[in-house]
Amino acid sequence: MREVAVIGVGMHPFGRFEDKGLKDLGRIAIWDAIRDAGVPPKDIQVAYVGNSLAGLLTGQEGVRGQIVMRDAGFGGIPVINVENACASSSTAFRGAWMEVASGLCDVALAVGVEKMFVGDTAKSIAALAADSDIELARMGLQFTGLYAIGLKKYMNMYGVTKEHFAKVVVKNTYNGSLNPYAQFRTPLTVEKVLRSFVIAEPLTFHMCSSMSDGAAAAILCSKELARRYTDKPLVLVASCALRSGMWQPPGKKFLDHDIVALTAKEAYRQAGVGPEDIDVAEVHDGMAPAELMVYEELGLCGEGEAKFLIDQGRTTITGDIPVNPSGGLAAKGHPVGATGLAQVAEIVWQLRGEAGQRQVAHPRVGLCHNNGGYVDGDAAACSIIILKT
Amino acid sequence: MREVAVIGVGMHPFGRFEDKGLKDLGRIAIWDAIRDAGVPPKDIQVAYVGNSLAGLLTGQEGVRGQIVMRDAGFGGIPVINVENACASSSTAFRGAWMEVASGLCDVALAVGVEKMFVGDTAKSIAALAADSDIELARMGLQFTGLYAIGLKKYMNMYGVTKEHFAKVVVKNTYNGSLNPYAQFRTPLTVEKVLRSFVIAEPLTFHMCSSMSDGAAAAILCSKELARRYTDKPLVLVASCALRSGMWQPPGKKFLDHDIVALTAKEAYRQAGVGPEDIDVAEVHDGMAPAELMVYEELGLCGEGEAKFLIDQGRTTITGDIPVNPSGGLAAKGHPVGATGLAQVAEIVWQLRGEAGQRQVAHPRVGLCHNNGGYVDGDAAACSIIILKT
Repeated sequence: MREVAVIGVGMHPFGRFEDKGLKDLGRIAIWDAIRDAGVPPKDIQVAYVGNSLAGLLTGQEGVRGQIVMRDAGFGGIPVINVENACASSSTAFRGAWMEVASGLCDVALAVGVEKMFVGDTAKSIAALAADSDIELARMGLQFTGLYAIGLKKYMNMYGVTKEHFAKVVVKNTYNGSLNPYAQFRTPLTVEKVLRSFVIAEPLTFHMCSSMSDGAAAAILCSKELARRYTDKPLVLVASCALRSGMWQPPGKKFLDHDIVALTAKEAYRQAGVGPEDIDVAEVHDGMAPAELMVYEELGLCGEGEAKFLIDQGRTTITGDIPVNPSGGLAAKGHPVGATGLAQVAEIVWQLRGEAGQRQVAHPRVGLCHNNGGYVDGDAAACSIIILKT
Repeated sequence: MREVAVIGVGMHPFGRFEDKGLKDLGRIAIWDAIRDAGVPPKDIQVAYVGNSLAGLLTGQEGVRGQIVMRDAGFGGIPVINVENACASSSTAFRGAWMEVASGLCDVALAVGVEKMFVGDTAKSIAALAADSDIELARMGLQFTGLYAIGLKKYMNMYGVTKEHFAKVVVKNTYNGSLNPYAQFRTPLTVEKVLRSFVIAEPLTFHMCSSMSDGAAAAILCSKELARRYTDKPLVLVASCALRSGMWQPPGKKFLDHDIVALTAKEAYRQAGVGPEDIDVAEVHDGMAPAELMVYEELGLCGEGEAKFLIDQGRTTITGDIPVNPSGGLAAKGHPVGATGLAQVAEIVWQLRGEAGQRQVAHPRVGLCHNNGGYVDGDAAACSIIILKT
């Protein structure tokens, strides 16, 4: 396997864009990444396109990626459409990485794009079902409710309070206020988060990521060819780990514990680093409490110690282990299939020192964690990507 | 890149199974492939799951593969959901091949599964749209009509008649009558095909593949480890080529000409063989005329000469270049996302000499051709897989 560099990234801002479709969102991200990489479009040999919801939400069920790529001006190359819920474009990134690492091609494009505002919120929510046979047909329960049930266990085991969850939102909305690509740019206070209406106890409105439209893209290239295209600091793919859940009963430990911890272990081993080496991380905070659990699952602190990290401000942009400098899913927005590559874009900007007002101090190793779907108390997919300069 | 063997294949019969869902179909194919390979399930390190329509047709939009894999008894491994219309599971096969060829893992599973009979035919047809913005919202034209328009050009250029198309159906329904996995097992006559009602001139009812439920799966393994598991003749992956269309105007040459010819050229180069070396082929005859064009595009004959191949019976099971011994899409059935791996299963059985009544004589090299989607007069995806003993 060859070393692979991420030589360009691009994004369409996340937000509500009622007059734009998949193509409009994707085109901007793709061409931003191409310009950033300095790659002539003809050199791109394969495209992986991640999207989760377009079948149900836009009616574009088949060949979504080809429709987006044709509109962006590309034909002839292999286009592989991949789906893994929130981790769809993390999975697209992994596919593009494998194409280059294996030597099958030299330059690959990964795209993530999602259109969620389609004028029918109920439809958008139903599309997010994890197992439609069970959730929609039998239980009538949706993942937010399922998640909230498991969450109580975590709170009881470690003395975690709703204030801790609110502090995650305070940190991330502040970070989002510094990010021109973010959907929500108003910093919130603990009071405001706790006083927003209850979605499913203990989750309040501001603790949950919202619907969003958006796109992100990355250009991957073999390390030995990267200097043909770019003079920017080279960001290398140190690991690309992906797992599905073990389908353990909800609440056995705390939510998603095992799959994230196991995937992290594999990612650290591949990269030859440990949690102590991570200088900056983008993690899946689809619900704010998840960020705290992920601190522990990634080994950034011991089990049950996440509340201290957030209390002590250690995961702020100026802390010793900044998490979600982009604003994360809660503030940046969460267009499902675009989220994974937006994490990659943020870490690339951070490692290159291009993150502007939200730049963390001299990072050399960055991590992207993303969970996708939720089946039987476990994430359906977990992706951990480690990048380094 | 390492050499990769297909050490096991399995299928759920194609047909109308109103009481079965994605999981029921997938489970049978997966476990048939596992038994055929002799692989302990714990040795399977990654799964690629191809499906095209479940979002719109069953409501299972996200993490389809995880839902199927969990039901089949698998958790923990990476699951990658891929979509490429009719070529969805050909694309899944390519992903599994790349995992093993690159050395990232030793044993990989590829699955294709589709549930089309959902009690609402109009819904099933709408889900097949290539570019929903254009076909559904603006033109109100569906791919069968678009295809028929382009087809006239081919007939005029080369003196091809509706009788030639009907002969393809006669051959394939005879083959299907010998295949226990086939949906339609009644051999048809030229008269019966031509007298069936017109779908879109010149296409009659029996020239078009129907809706179908079904699944197929394959186990891929590095060549050097294959003998740990199986004593059967080893079937190797000689090439795995995939392209998207160039989006050329319909009717410029004849339909799909360029993408298939270009993909074939790449596949032959990778495999180090030419069209003269192909002993048996499974090709995409979603509409019967396509099979004739594919003869020419694959180089099995010269341009415009396909009608002679069918007239002379050269592509029957006992001919010198048998095509679609399984019955092809028309007779075997066409559960969109399962079709690619069903082609692989047929070629593996043929190369091992296990195809029973439809066995062709001593094949050593077999080819699977599959097109997916149809955008602007070109296939959205074309996959050509060459297998050899």
